[in-house]
Amino acid sequence: MIFRFDFGNPFCTEAVTKEIPAKTGLEAEKEFSVYGELSLNTGFSFKMSLQKNSVIYGFGQSMGGINKKGRKYISYCTDDPVHTEGKDSLYGAHNFFIIHNPGEKHTDLGFFFDYPGRITFDIAFTETDRIIISAEEKDISCYVIKPEGKNPLEDITRQFREIIGRSYIPPRWALGYMQSRWGYRTKEDIESVYENYTKAGIPLDSICMDIDYMVEFKDFTIDGEKFPSFPDFVSKLKKDGVRLVPIIDAGVKIEPGYDVYEEGVKNNYFCKKADGKDYVAGVWPGRTHFPDFLNPEARRWFGLKYKVLTDTGVEGFWNDMNEPAMFYSDEGLSEAVEALKNTDLSKLDINGFFAFKDKVTGIANNENDYKRFYHRCIQNGKEVTVNHHKIHNLFGYNMTRAAAEGLNEINPSKRFLLFSRASYIGMHRYGGIWTGDNSSWWSHIKLELSMMPGLNMCGILYTGADIGGFGYNASRELLMRWIEFGLFTPLMRNHAALGTRDQECYRFENPEDFARLIRFRYRLIPYIYTEYMKSALKNTMYFRPLSFVYPEDMDCLEIEDQLMVGESLMVAPVLEPNSTGRNIYLPEDMIEVRLTNTEEIIQTEIPKGRHYIKFPLDELVFYIRKGHALPLAKPAMRTDLIDFENLSYIGDKEVIQKAGKEGIPPYKVYIDDGFTTEYKEI
Amino acid sequence: MIFRFDFGNPFCTEAVTKEIPAKTGLEAEKEFSVYGELSLNTGFSFKMSLQKNSVIYGFGQSMGGINKKGRKYISYCTDDPVHTEGKDSLYGAHNFFIIHNPGEKHTDLGFFFDYPGRITFDIAFTETDRIIISAEEKDISCYVIKPEGKNPLEDITRQFREIIGRSYIPPRWALGYMQSRWGYRTKEDIESVYENYTKAGIPLDSICMDIDYMVEFKDFTIDGEKFPSFPDFVSKLKKDGVRLVPIIDAGVKIEPGYDVYEEGVKNNYFCKKADGKDYVAGVWPGRTHFPDFLNPEARRWFGLKYKVLTDTGVEGFWNDMNEPAMFYSDEGLSEAVEALKNTDLSKLDINGFFAFKDKVTGIANNENDYKRFYHRCIQNGKEVTVNHHKIHNLFGYNMTRAAAEGLNEINPSKRFLLFSRASYIGMHRYGGIWTGDNSSWWSHIKLELSMMPGLNMCGILYTGADIGGFGYNASRELLMRWIEFGLFTPLMRNHAALGTRDQECYRFENPEDFARLIRFRYRLIPYIYTEYMKSALKNTMYFRPLSFVYPEDMDCLEIEDQLMVGESLMVAPVLEPNSTGRNIYLPEDMIEVRLTNTEEIIQTEIPKGRHYIKFPLDELVFYIRKGHALPLAKPAMRTDLIDFENLSYIGDKEVIQKAGKEGIPPYKVYIDDGFTTEYKEI
Repeated sequence: MIFRFDFGNPFCTEAVTKEIPAKTGLEAEKEFSVYGELSLNTGFSFKMSLQKNSVIYGFGQSMGGINKKGRKYISYCTDDPVHTEGKDSLYGAHNFFIIHNPGEKHTDLGFFFDYPGRITFDIAFTETDRIIISAEEKDISCYVIKPEGKNPLEDITRQFREIIGRSYIPPRWALGYMQSRWGYRTKEDIESVYENYTKAGIPLDSICMDIDYMVEFKDFTIDGEKFPSFPDFVSKLKKDGVRLVPIIDAGVKIEPGYDVYEEGVKNNYFCKKADGKDYVAGVWPGRTHFPDFLNPEARRWFGLKYKVLTDTGVEGFWNDMNEPAMFYSDEGLSEAVEALKNTDLSKLDINGFFAFKDKVTGIANNENDYKRFYHRCIQNGKEVTVNHHKIHNLFGYNMTRAAAEGLNEINPSKRFLLFSRASYIGMHRYGGIWTGDNSSWWSHIKLELSMMPGLNMCGILYTGADIGGFGYNASRELLMRWIEFGLFTPLMRNHAALGTRDQECYRFENPEDFARLIRFRYRLIPYIYTEYMKSALKNTMYFRPLSFVYPEDMDCLEIEDQLMVGESLMVAPVLEPNSTGRNIYLPEDMIEVRLTNTEEIIQTEIPKGRHYIKFPLDELVFYIRKGHALPLAKPAMRTDLIDFENLSYIGDKEVIQKAGKEGIPPYKVYIDDGFTTEYKEI
Repeated sequence: MIFRFDFGNPFCTEAVTKEIPAKTGLEAEKEFSVYGELSLNTGFSFKMSLQKNSVIYGFGQSMGGINKKGRKYISYCTDDPVHTEGKDSLYGAHNFFIIHNPGEKHTDLGFFFDYPGRITFDIAFTETDRIIISAEEKDISCYVIKPEGKNPLEDITRQFREIIGRSYIPPRWALGYMQSRWGYRTKEDIESVYENYTKAGIPLDSICMDIDYMVEFKDFTIDGEKFPSFPDFVSKLKKDGVRLVPIIDAGVKIEPGYDVYEEGVKNNYFCKKADGKDYVAGVWPGRTHFPDFLNPEARRWFGLKYKVLTDTGVEGFWNDMNEPAMFYSDEGLSEAVEALKNTDLSKLDINGFFAFKDKVTGIANNENDYKRFYHRCIQNGKEVTVNHHKIHNLFGYNMTRAAAEGLNEINPSKRFLLFSRASYIGMHRYGGIWTGDNSSWWSHIKLELSMMPGLNMCGILYTGADIGGFGYNASRELLMRWIEFGLFTPLMRNHAALGTRDQECYRFENPEDFARLIRFRYRLIPYIYTEYMKSALKNTMYFRPLSFVYPEDMDCLEIEDQLMVGESLMVAPVLEPNSTGRNIYLPEDMIEVRLTNTEEIIQTEIPKGRHYIKFPLDELVFYIRKGHALPLAKPAMRTDLIDFENLSYIGDKEVIQKAGKEGIPPYKVYIDDGFTTEYKEI
């Protein structure tokens, strides 16, 4: 059961696609106050009591654990590449959460605060027994979801997913291993990656092209000097099943003569300042304009621009810098430089120095700049001008919507790979996300693990972190452990930043160890694809906290380092360096699967309970639930080459034997062409 | 057995106090090459092979776990307040480590690289089977320690400690609970802390005074407006057993008429540039000079300045900003401002922008600035001028040496509390350290735990982290869990930064929960003090990795979240939020001690092995070894009031009963006056 309460004059974000009648006015205030203390005096404020043992799930891309209690979360899409524990905001804004009261599950509730601006969720941080939600404006749509089935966590999630629309489905090749690096500059760089992976016997489906493939970072250009005969190059690689995935940034370079710039200016497709001039932000290309993705015409125009690249044979994209990230604004930069020019060094005291320094260090992604420009949006059929700051969290979402709608118009029957950095709930219908510019830190494997179920709850299924970490330098062990988890994520990409250690698997000692792991990923793809399609088509989750699957098991509530993957598997990755084992908790008897360093698969029954298990670095260990069989394809170097028909099965022997006797497969694999939008029933 | 090999012309750091004859020249090169590949062609380079299962201990204050494998460590004392996993340098420089080869312990070796400049230790990071050590200059003293006893880890550590001299011993009151905050500005602020702790029934021994007590951040001044009749205030608090601990910063404000400045200039006590002018660095007071702590005369002059404060009754100090931290240099600032003044905005491309931004963001603690000034040092009885960069890591060490020598001259029989931020091996003889500007992050409890044994190995016994975390905002749960570990650290201080959430225990819900924990700390002080004195007087460790105590137990090698505390205890703190239990490993049968939320002590025998144990937030749980008894004092609000004579005992009943029958205490407590340097035998 879903209830909607509208306060003030909410902006229609189109996060929710299903019509839910809203209570409004005093009636809304009265009825919503059943759930907590509501105040609309200054902006929006809402305080809810928690039980001591309440567990909070949700918030999509955010810091913290699977249980979101004890922190603040601020939804305000932010390009902050240092994901330390103290950060409140990341790239996405996912205002959905569930309050779970163990042992009293009829009291569980889901909440979605559909609000496109800055909103703060203080989840038992300031007060240990309360949730405190506050937003600058009272214009907000609140959805309350009451569970119906016997598993409230699963049911609330399913109900929420039903109202926000079906999740994006990528082409099947997007489940293959992707290699990326900010720093591939030329055709030769890409070829070298392709050749080295081939030589090392490591499966590979795609190579991402970061900003350097463009002419001066101009969207929808390809530098012909660095990439001569680009369509031929695309087609040559594709013949061997390897695809190129270029990046597209949000800002359009200001350069007379550049078609995207000229068209945008001419047609008023760019965000404007109060004085009607196009807003200027400094990003990779230098001074740029931001397309007004909130405006349907501008969105269509930008989306169709992707044809420049699809015409070369490209079938996938990643949308970046779309929080939108800003290194500076014209105004901010001028103010800083002017202030500095007037600095009298001889009179500079320490406060003067910090004022000077802060002027420069605070120049990027400054909230004042987000207040300097406007969007032309259609609301209730009418064009309205809205300050960016108020709908900040919709920018990346609508950039990716632009791309998805454009690509759909370019080829309606084709699935394109599309993933974004910034997002808001609703964007999950148009593409996936990667979890942004993480670091080569052990804690970021766990951070990824923690985020996955929250993202799935918000419909974002095609997702994964930069394996090995984007910033800083990865050790071989870190990369290996990360792959041991990452081989279960739908988006499986190794990506690293300019200036960091080379991070392609073949750069490290014994690439064969990496090859073995990634080969196994490919053997798992029939399962991963099937479970992905189930999650997308049935509004379920691909990654689940253990407590979602074993709601009666109170021990599951605190398991923060294991996840259920699809209906049959549980993973318990090693999250610490220099470890050859770890403690695990089995909520039921399970079958341990151990892929040895000689590529044997050893299956062992392990009883329900807590165990210390050996997880040597060069072995992959995971668990199959009793009553389940896991299909394994034959090894393949490309997803295109995976044989979905001839599978072997591991897992519960009884299930496998019984199915054998009945002449049916013990696990029903979802099979379609993997390329078109002709999805099958599941 | 300790072997010393000198290459080039090593600077005498006085880290080692015992005369060890050095091999030099070709003989040294030949003999040292037994341990690895030595190259002296460009600077110093040394590569050692590791076994696959080698474990590395040491490196004092550094990132990473107890096992230091898989990372780089760069010794170059750095004021970097963001202690993320990716950082290579912290405030200290502790170039000692042990290579432990499990199962082949006769091959274990200790290494100390006595080198006062930047030196890099790549510990199986770039190559998984090698240690690669490199320094800019070849002028280095290398010590190799071969174990003699049957416990090589303990023995190597003891041998090393014997050559670097006895660790600093604080007054006993320094083991009491300390409250601190950057932001206490006035007498009233301090009084409020004192009164609120008293009201909440939480024991307290001292309150730290951060930079705001001074007049314009000038060392050895007290702002009389904010602190009228300061000596009376000191004495009033001391009557109730509470002491004030002011901060002293490294930089001396440039201000004509200010005595410290005037004397320093007149006597050439400040570090000078190549042109002979006093070097200028911007720190808290604005433009400052750095005392030349490497120069014995300047050191004595600065040390005796502490008398300004000891004359008011102050008995303890913390030395800060002594890496030395620099917000800017005169030269760096001028260069940045000049460059910016010439910036033509209209022509600024993205590279120009980043050049502009980097000029300002790179202005602090810039290595170029460390090369701009010089020290006058005595080497082999002669005065030599040395560039700061080359001996950078000795600065904080010698500031604290200055203080310790000065305080000793002021009152030779008195113990003063003294701890520093920057350090080098050798400084452990003069004071302790706190682990610097950490953050209110869960990972920083573990970081503290990991650092403790490494610091102890280097002789730094009086140490602990800012409990609750310095930067960012602490949750109640974080502070509570941190105290549950912190109550075992000799230095137990709650400290927080300006602008962060108030972090005194009484600011949170149910201060009684904190009171109960801190009261228990005071009951433990006879044990903590005894074990501290043992460690200091016998060159042993106060905190040990489990593997140091159970060298035959291979399972101990990977225990990264438990520590042995003194001879009798093992702690296993909860390091994750929202957890009411954790997995532990007992290397032998032990007695679990559970301090309940009603202040009962429940003792339970737990057998050797792995267990999942309930650790509710409001209970303290730790372990006593079989064969050991733990003395507990009666509760007291001040260390001065602790009765060391009338103790009760918990732990191994047989031991306690047997001792009872024999009429001797089951644990021998070390008792002295706690204030003078008249230490007893132990």
